[in-house]
Amino acid sequence: MEDTATARLLITAPDRPGLVAAVAAFVADHGGNIVDADQHTDDEAGMFFQRVEFRLAGFDLDRSALPAALRAVTEPLGMHWQLRFSDEERRIAILASRQLHCVYDLLGRSATGDLPATVAFVASNHPDFGPAAQRFDVPFHHLPVDPGTRSEQEARLAELATDAGVELIVLARYMQILSPTFVDRFESSIINIHHSFLPAFVGARPYHQAYERGVKIIGVTAHYVTADLDQGPIIEQDVVPVSHRDGVDDLVRMGRDLETVVLARAVRHHLTDRVLVCGRKTVVFG
Amino acid sequence: MEDTATARLLITAPDRPGLVAAVAAFVADHGGNIVDADQHTDDEAGMFFQRVEFRLAGFDLDRSALPAALRAVTEPLGMHWQLRFSDEERRIAILASRQLHCVYDLLGRSATGDLPATVAFVASNHPDFGPAAQRFDVPFHHLPVDPGTRSEQEARLAELATDAGVELIVLARYMQILSPTFVDRFESSIINIHHSFLPAFVGARPYHQAYERGVKIIGVTAHYVTADLDQGPIIEQDVVPVSHRDGVDDLVRMGRDLETVVLARAVRHHLTDRVLVCGRKTVVFG
Amino acid sequence: MEDTATARLLITAPDRPGLVAAVAAFVADHGGNIVDADQHTDDEAGMFFQRVEFRLAGFDLDRSALPAALRAVTEPLGMHWQLRFSDEERRIAILASRQLHCVYDLLGRSATGDLPATVAFVASNHPDFGPAAQRFDVPFHHLPVDPGTRSEQEARLAELATDAGVELIVLARYMQILSPTFVDRFESSIINIHHSFLPAFVGARPYHQAYERGVKIIGVTAHYVTADLDQGPIIEQDVVPVSHRDGVDDLVRMGRDLETVVLARAVRHHLTDRVLVCGRKTVVFG
Amino acid sequence: MEDTATARLLITAPDRPGLVAAVAAFVADHGGNIVDADQHTDDEAGMFFQRVEFRLAGFDLDRSALPAALRAVTEPLGMHWQLRFSDEERRIAILASRQLHCVYDLLGRSATGDLPATVAFVASNHPDFGPAAQRFDVPFHHLPVDPGTRSEQEARLAELATDAGVELIVLARYMQILSPTFVDRFESSIINIHHSFLPAFVGARPYHQAYERGVKIIGVTAHYVTADLDQGPIIEQDVVPVSHRDGVDDLVRMGRDLETVVLARAVRHHLTDRVLVCGRKTVVFG
Repeated sequence: MEDTATARLLITAPDRPGLVAAVAAFVADHGGNIVDADQHTDDEAGMFFQRVEFRLAGFDLDRSALPAALRAVTEPLGMHWQLRFSDEERRIAILASRQLHCVYDLLGRSATGDLPATVAFVASNHPDFGPAAQRFDVPFHHLPVDPGTRSEQEARLAELATDAGVELIVLARYMQILSPTFVDRFESSIINIHHSFLPAFVGARPYHQAYERGVKIIGVTAHYVTADLDQGPIIEQDVVPVSHRDGVDDLVRMGRDLETVVLARAVRHHLTDRVLVCGRKTVVFG
Repeated sequence: MEDTATARLLITAPDRPGLVAAVAAFVADHGGNIVDADQHTDDEAGMFFQRVEFRLAGFDLDRSALPAALRAVTEPLGMHWQLRFSDEERRIAILASRQLHCVYDLLGRSATGDLPATVAFVASNHPDFGPAAQRFDVPFHHLPVDPGTRSEQEARLAELATDAGVELIVLARYMQILSPTFVDRFESSIINIHHSFLPAFVGARPYHQAYERGVKIIGVTAHYVTADLDQGPIIEQDVVPVSHRDGVDDLVRMGRDLETVVLARAVRHHLTDRVLVCGRKTVVFG
Repeated sequence: MEDTATARLLITAPDRPGLVAAVAAFVADHGGNIVDADQHTDDEAGMFFQRVEFRLAGFDLDRSALPAALRAVTEPLGMHWQLRFSDEERRIAILASRQLHCVYDLLGRSATGDLPATVAFVASNHPDFGPAAQRFDVPFHHLPVDPGTRSEQEARLAELATDAGVELIVLARYMQILSPTFVDRFESSIINIHHSFLPAFVGARPYHQAYERGVKIIGVTAHYVTADLDQGPIIEQDVVPVSHRDGVDDLVRMGRDLETVVLARAVRHHLTDRVLVCGRKTVVFG
Repeated sequence: MEDTATARLLITAPDRPGLVAAVAAFVADHGGNIVDADQHTDDEAGMFFQRVEFRLAGFDLDRSALPAALRAVTEPLGMHWQLRFSDEERRIAILASRQLHCVYDLLGRSATGDLPATVAFVASNHPDFGPAAQRFDVPFHHLPVDPGTRSEQEARLAELATDAGVELIVLARYMQILSPTFVDRFESSIINIHHSFLPAFVGARPYHQAYERGVKIIGVTAHYVTADLDQGPIIEQDVVPVSHRDGVDDLVRMGRDLETVVLARAVRHHLTDRVLVCGRKTVVFG
């Protein structure tokens, strides 16, 4: 039976002439049909980034033989790459605190098939999410935390994520700060939604800050989590106009819709292998 | 104990000088504190529209005495009005066909308190929504329909809505056409989400039409349902940019996010008493 | 001959019941027909803001008698107000440095009648704008400045503005900092366009900052100038999406279109008497 | 002296494996450095589209030898292509009727260097544009037209365009319909700005139509002109929210800002060799 899936190759390399030609030739030589290809050169960093998606039908190497054949081409050119197949199961965990909207949204998307991932579990430092997770038959872990127990809590979370085969942890309005140790362990594997248009209004209560400053537009930002709070590489942002009529409650409410949509978009970009990190920035292939 | 609710007055009248002054004086004379007021005059139609929201704390008429006192002021001026209180329970029904995203979104919003209404029931001509409604402990009614049974189906739906005290029927991607009889009975009480930027792409398969035409932006439209298909007064619209990279499947997926958000906004506008109909158009007080 | 103009009243007052009623009654009692009215209460500041526009046709007070009659009503209520007529000539000055796009845009709008104002003059610390102003038959003043001559330059600018009957000074990418003395003298009468989505990227070279941070959206901000750099009350903001493909040059170019449109909108809001300042914020009646 | 320009290759071909590899190899083999590459496959049409931009510095073929060398590679693969150099002078003509805003905008952009083209002339069926063109030292041709003289007028316009070396005719709110003969002669070389979000509100007075329909968003569309009125391939669209407060005059005014920006963007896309036509659609490489 014909393989209907695609292979997705995400490549990073020091820039030099011939990179595009090498990858294109490799796919063509093995009978692959490229269905989508995009590339980017960061002149400042001197780095080359590429995403290539090709059909496995007609490709003359099978999945297990692909990595070695690819290495033969890419190693001499200094390329690093990630290879995924479109039909792999992807597993994520959701971490939240008290607000339910992003969690319901992600669970709903997973239930309807809109999110190409299985939600392995929901965890929270508050018990409130039990019913939400339960409605969608997703395991819930209550992981309370206080300053003295942070490292144990994070160890438990890491263990749960690893045991469940989770590749991405989604912070769906999780209001605790993760330790550098934890963050380093899950590098480029934790996506947070910050409720401001970063770098405006870093830190706490950004909607209050926005209200005080009298901005005419509010925004939200989805980014990979790094050890520097609110400084990680931005994946996606969006905004909505506001006016003097809107009080803090209105900003919070309007922001919720932005948060759910922007977080879902960022998670989808990650899960469809469209995001590469370049220093403090991302390349997101559309 | 002090009444912390507000009264919301939605007024329609033939335009003439003094309307604003009359309402403002009525509220002021009874000790009311206006927290929000907005008005609009449609010069072509010669009509005046107003929304006034005032605190009941300090107001010297109780809720039951308000209508009669108001009539004494408004009748001589030819005003029609609707009076609602911010703490009333509002009840809606959701009608859907096969797609789950808007239904999950509305149920999630109702569960988190974001939507100021109780979902009395979900009904569908397909059985697929049973589990979704069940997850949220909302009654589900399977109301199959074929050309020969439309009038019975609609009669059953009307009966269910009336029995459940429903004031608004939300068509969350309901793919059946409602009869003029049904529509007339629920005038300005049925909100539909159409998956195009009306009046572009009326009728079936609008995302396919948009793809064929090669537009660079797609949109969706929430409107009150009238006997003229896709012609009802528009409450809310929004758009998202697309490109040549986006196939029909991408348009459908991107459109889903628009549909949920725009439908939820329109339903919220209705339930917070912000929408007045003026012929083929709406006045939506922001 | 009938007066076809309108009167525009901008009111600020400590909030108390009856303010709307008092103004509405005043206009109605004199036979005025309100064509547009909007109001806002800032609960935190305890302040009331209102814009009322009414037709002079049919109004039984002539223009010169209006202020005294109005005072009789408003003084007891602690109201401050500004009264303008829609047919008054409004005069603005444009101050620029090296970049031409906002200047050409404003001159073009004035020439086509889109901007409801006469450009009294263009001034710049660089001589480059002579030809642009000349093309539109607008006087140009070259006002060079260095740290030692700032106060003389500002004195000359103030004199030019005063002599020319200018009510609004538009900083169309003027790269010099104005002294607190100058700014105080023209309070709420200087509009600046800052080329970032404030409060993100205050200070110099915001597009470079945005590029370094890797944001996915850039913006611009039009605000009244105060003694605190980039901190004045925001009148208007807008944004445009960007991607990893966009270098600094692209951000600059895309930003230019935003700057011209947002600055023109803010200037129009001011000239149509729609803006009131409330502390660090504005109320902009749409 | 080193050549600092780039070559821009726009390729169209029936899709088949190996196309990307062939072009990439050609550039790499001659020492070219690709600075930007983008591609698209239209599965329905079975067509492949590509834009490749590479530096001429270091490229071992000179400009005159490039086409023949390229043909040797592309002809066997059935590729059609267009080759332009980034430092070529590009010449456009502007055709208008009565409204000045787009014309002033394009002339201003050309004067500031924002538009990478020389405006060879402005022509209009009305004499009103003489002063505008004169301000910018651009020739103006008054080409009056009535039903009996259309073919002569178009012949004169075609002659002017050809004599002036014009490659693109920009209809900046030109209200006359061009004949199929003229349109065919300048295939994919005439860009029109239509003042609606096509396909909504085709034909005359779209802002009036939008007002009557009560839409909550208005838009504009830049497209190549074809013999089918308002049906040509769309290059760019944008929108702006409106409300019940906005009368037809407001829509017209708000639309003007959209028209200028969207038309300028479409013209820039064309002049930077980013647009390929695929049947009724365009591929616009961002």
